[in-house]
Amino acid sequence: MPELRTDPISGRWVIIATERAARPTDFSSPPAHVDDPQQCPFCPGREDRTPPEIFAIREPGSAPNGPGWHVRVVSNKYPALRIEGTTAPSNVGIYTRTDGVGAHEVIIEATDHHTHLGLLPVHHVGAVVSAYLQRYRDLDGDERFQYALLFRNHGRTAGASLSHPHSQLIALPVIPKRAAEELQAAQYYFGRNGICVFCALIQQERASGERVVFENERFIAVQPYAARFPFETWLLPKEHKASFGELTEPEAMSFAEMLQKTLHALHTCIDNPPYNYIVHTAPYVDHARHFYHWHLEIMPRLTQVAGFEWGSGFFINPVVPEDAARFLRDAASKLTSETPAPVETRSGP
Amino acid sequence: MPELRTDPISGRWVIIATERAARPTDFSSPPAHVDDPQQCPFCPGREDRTPPEIFAIREPGSAPNGPGWHVRVVSNKYPALRIEGTTAPSNVGIYTRTDGVGAHEVIIEATDHHTHLGLLPVHHVGAVVSAYLQRYRDLDGDERFQYALLFRNHGRTAGASLSHPHSQLIALPVIPKRAAEELQAAQYYFGRNGICVFCALIQQERASGERVVFENERFIAVQPYAARFPFETWLLPKEHKASFGELTEPEAMSFAEMLQKTLHALHTCIDNPPYNYIVHTAPYVDHARHFYHWHLEIMPRLTQVAGFEWGSGFFINPVVPEDAARFLRDAASKLTSETPAPVETRSGP
Repeated sequence: MPELRTDPISGRWVIIATERAARPTDFSSPPAHVDDPQQCPFCPGREDRTPPEIFAIREPGSAPNGPGWHVRVVSNKYPALRIEGTTAPSNVGIYTRTDGVGAHEVIIEATDHHTHLGLLPVHHVGAVVSAYLQRYRDLDGDERFQYALLFRNHGRTAGASLSHPHSQLIALPVIPKRAAEELQAAQYYFGRNGICVFCALIQQERASGERVVFENERFIAVQPYAARFPFETWLLPKEHKASFGELTEPEAMSFAEMLQKTLHALHTCIDNPPYNYIVHTAPYVDHARHFYHWHLEIMPRLTQVAGFEWGSGFFINPVVPEDAARFLRDAASKLTSETPAPVETRSGP
Repeated sequence: MPELRTDPISGRWVIIATERAARPTDFSSPPAHVDDPQQCPFCPGREDRTPPEIFAIREPGSAPNGPGWHVRVVSNKYPALRIEGTTAPSNVGIYTRTDGVGAHEVIIEATDHHTHLGLLPVHHVGAVVSAYLQRYRDLDGDERFQYALLFRNHGRTAGASLSHPHSQLIALPVIPKRAAEELQAAQYYFGRNGICVFCALIQQERASGERVVFENERFIAVQPYAARFPFETWLLPKEHKASFGELTEPEAMSFAEMLQKTLHALHTCIDNPPYNYIVHTAPYVDHARHFYHWHLEIMPRLTQVAGFEWGSGFFINPVVPEDAARFLRDAASKLTSETPAPVETRSGP
C-alpha cells in the first residue's frame, strides 16, 4: 500500500510509492520512452491492454472495451494510489501519515495517437470536458476523497510518459498544499475586500486589456500578472463559481471552445510546446462558494530553469506577460478562418 | 530594469526579465549548451571573460582577475536583477510590483572544469563555504536586501547552463514565498510546542535513526520523512541557529565536511546525479533566532515527473526515504578509506 506523508514544516503531502520501491541503479539510465504507435495501449484495437473502461463516449451500439469509442476513461494501470483502504491519519511523532488511498484515472482523449486537444474540433474537446465532469462528479460521491486533481501533461519535457493524448484525474483523501493555500488566500482576500480575488482579477484584466488573450461569452483567457512561466495562461469562468463540478452543459461547451482555442494558439505560436495544465477547483469537502473561483492554469515548459524554482518558490520569467498576450492574440487571429481538420480518425493500429 | 511582481493569490514573487525579453521563436529549438572547456569563461586564464572579481581565495601574491585563485566570486554576467535602483513597491490595482533590484553573484568553486564539490578535498569545500559566508554577510550590509538565496545547480537536468562547478547567490528586496512560509510555520509550531520544529525533527530522527544518513559533531544529514524527491537529503546544524550567516569558523568546516561527504555518497550511490541544493536561512531583516533553524536541502533530479508537481504542490516519490538513507549509508561506508584525489589542478586551458 502506498503511503501519504505530510511534511511538518511546509504542510505538503507526498505519495511515497512503497510498493514499486526503486533502487539506486534504477536511476543510472533514463527510463525508456515508449512512443511506438504500434505498441500504444491507448490506441483503438488494444482496449484489452488497459484496465476495463470506467466511462466512455462511444458510437451507438458499440460494446465497452472494444473499438467504437471517441473518449475513454480507464484506471491507471500503474496507479500512484490504491482504491481500497481507509483514510484515518496517524501520527508518527511530529509526522502524520495515512494509507495511500485514492483513485487514479486516465482520460484517453481521442483515438488518434498523434493528435492534440488544440488540433481537435471543438465538439470533440467538448466530449473530453464532458468526460472530465462525469468522472470528477462521480468521485465526489466517495466520502473518503477530499480533493480531485485533474491535469494534463503534454510532451516528454512536461512529464508525459505516453504520447497518446490523455489527461489524468487523481482523487485524494487530503487537500494538496497548493489548493489549501489558494483557498486560504482567497478567503483572506474576501474577508478584507468583500469580493472574490479572482472576480477582482477578471475585472481589472478586462478593464486594462493588456494581458487578455481572448474571451468568449462565458470565459476569459489571460496571462497572469506575475506569470511564472513564459506564455503561462489562465482560463477563468466570468461567472463566479467555486467548483469545476458545478459547470452547466452550456458552460462546459464554452470552456471547451476556449480551451481548444488557447491550446491551438499556443501550438502555432510556439511550435507545439510541452506544457502541463491543472484544474484549480474547490475541495469536494468544502465547496467554498463565496470566496473561491475555479479556473485552469496552463504552464508551458519552455525554460530550462527548473528545480531551483520549486525549491525556492522563486521564479524568473524571460517573457513579459503583456508581450505573451499580444503574441498569442496575433497567433489566434490567424486561426479564425481555419477549422482544424478532424484528425481523430486518421490513425490507429 | 527587470521587474519584481507578486501574484495576489499565492503571494509568490516572480522576476520578469523585461530587458532581454524573449520572443516566441526563441523557444522553437532548445538553447545551445556550451560545455567546451576550451571556451569556458570560468576556467583559469580566462578571468577577463567574467565581470571583475568581488572576492577570491588566492595564492599569496597573485593578482586579482588573473590566475592563482582557488575559489573566485564574480557578478553574474547576465544577472536576473540589477544592483542599481530603489525598492519601493507600488500597487497596480490588485497587484504589487517593485524594480528588479538585487545582486546576482556566481561562486566559481574550483579551477578544474570537470570536478565537483563531492570529489574535492574537504579543505577545498571549506574554502567554498568560506566564500559563501563572506558574500552572504557582505550583502547583508545593503539595507535594500531582505533575503539571500544561495543555491547550486548541478547537471543540465538541474538547470546548470555552464558545467564548470559553481554556485549562485541572489540577494532580493523581498522574501520569497517558500522562505516566508517556512518562517510562518516554524513560528506557529514554536508557539504551540515551545520548541523549534527543526530541533524537534532532529531529536526524533536521532532517536529513530532510520532516516539518518550520517552525522558528525555539529551536523546531521537526514532523508526527510515526506521527501519530495528520491534521495532528497537535508543537512541540519545540531545546534539551533537561525541564520546561515551566524556560522562560526569551526562550524563552517564541520558543514563543509558533511557537505562533501553527502555529495560524494550521492555521486557514487546514484552515478553523479543532477541535483539542486538550496540554503534555507532566516531573512536578513528578521533573524528570527528562537523559532527558525537554517539548513541545506539537496534535491536530486532523478524523476521525470516535473511540472505537474510544482503546479499542484503534490509530489510522488518512488523511493522510500528509509531505503534511501540505507543506500546512502552503505555508499558512504565504502568511501571512508578513500580520500578523493585533488582533481582541481588536473585541467585548465
